[in-house]
Amino acid sequence: MPREPKWDRVLTSAARLFAEDGFAATSVRAVAERARLTKAGLYYHIKEKEDLLYRICEQSIADILDGARAALARAGDPAAQLGALVRNHCEFFFRHPHNLTVLNRDMGALTGQQREAIRALESDYLDLIRDVFRAGQRQGRFRALDATVSAFGLLGVLNTLDRWYDAAGPVKPEALVQQIETFLMQGFVVSDGRRK
Amino acid sequence: MPREPKWDRVLTSAARLFAEDGFAATSVRAVAERARLTKAGLYYHIKEKEDLLYRICEQSIADILDGARAALARAGDPAAQLGALVRNHCEFFFRHPHNLTVLNRDMGALTGQQREAIRALESDYLDLIRDVFRAGQRQGRFRALDATVSAFGLLGVLNTLDRWYDAAGPVKPEALVQQIETFLMQGFVVSDGRRK
Repeated sequence: MPREPKWDRVLTSAARLFAEDGFAATSVRAVAERARLTKAGLYYHIKEKEDLLYRICEQSIADILDGARAALARAGDPAAQLGALVRNHCEFFFRHPHNLTVLNRDMGALTGQQREAIRALESDYLDLIRDVFRAGQRQGRFRALDATVSAFGLLGVLNTLDRWYDAAGPVKPEALVQQIETFLMQGFVVSDGRRK
Repeated sequence: MPREPKWDRVLTSAARLFAEDGFAATSVRAVAERARLTKAGLYYHIKEKEDLLYRICEQSIADILDGARAALARAGDPAAQLGALVRNHCEFFFRHPHNLTVLNRDMGALTGQQREAIRALESDYLDLIRDVFRAGQRQGRFRALDATVSAFGLLGVLNTLDRWYDAAGPVKPEALVQQIETFLMQGFVVSDGRRK
């Protein structure tokens, strides 16, 4: 499938409509209209509505994952890596708030190979996060907590931002990232000199 | 509406089906079958499918809220109250895992007065949590973080348990509560002697 601006516009339009009205209640015609295409023009790119959902989910997790890998490579130790993961996920949300809603709520509508492909990407991301927790624990820098519980705790905070956060409200995006980083780092990382 | 065992069976059946198949894809007939009622028998209790969703959401938040208020009354200080809130929410999830899924994913299908009533209950719960954070900060026991960011961080961890946690897996329910309590308490509460 093409990755041209027109196609980006289609996915942005679809993500917004899915997020606002739900995947089930959104028609391909409505996506076409918002993307300024004819319905036939849109069907040139996709076979069915599910393909739009798949591409939104796939590009979103791939985007988060690419950013996470780059951030981990730059960060020096597990604690810095944890902070970098938090920042990367928040920054994806700031760029594509609707995509997070679609990922969290509508992904279940995918079936077959598409569902498997998205699950594989999610699993890669989960593994990457758990590896940071495990490395931190091996070095005695992180509390002794189950890596899966820790990873889903982190993801629970980050993946629900779309439910409540409003960048026009009192807490600006940079302050949000800093506050989340603070309580997650304090929650998982043992303070220097007080390792236990 | 009656609160008899038959009605409880209806709501339990509906929550399970909504959680598994989604609210939109579940028919009143399917709920009636699972609850061992005729469709006509079920319609004696409700006007439309949305009423089932409303009652599930209403009873769930009321249950969490009642438990939270009782837990706060028993707990001695804001730190103990925070732990009690975490435990109460987890225990609701252990009792009614499907209800959490319905609350998180399907509540948006409610409209009008029903939507407003559920939002009012959610808002009461949010206020109760924020008040604990504010009290802890006033006493210098909690880190200086925005109470809304803190409350939604906490809720993000707790409200996404249904997405991944399996009580039959390696981490048993009591261990889950303890691990979540650990990283949330460390995240929000300043350790004794290291207040800042």
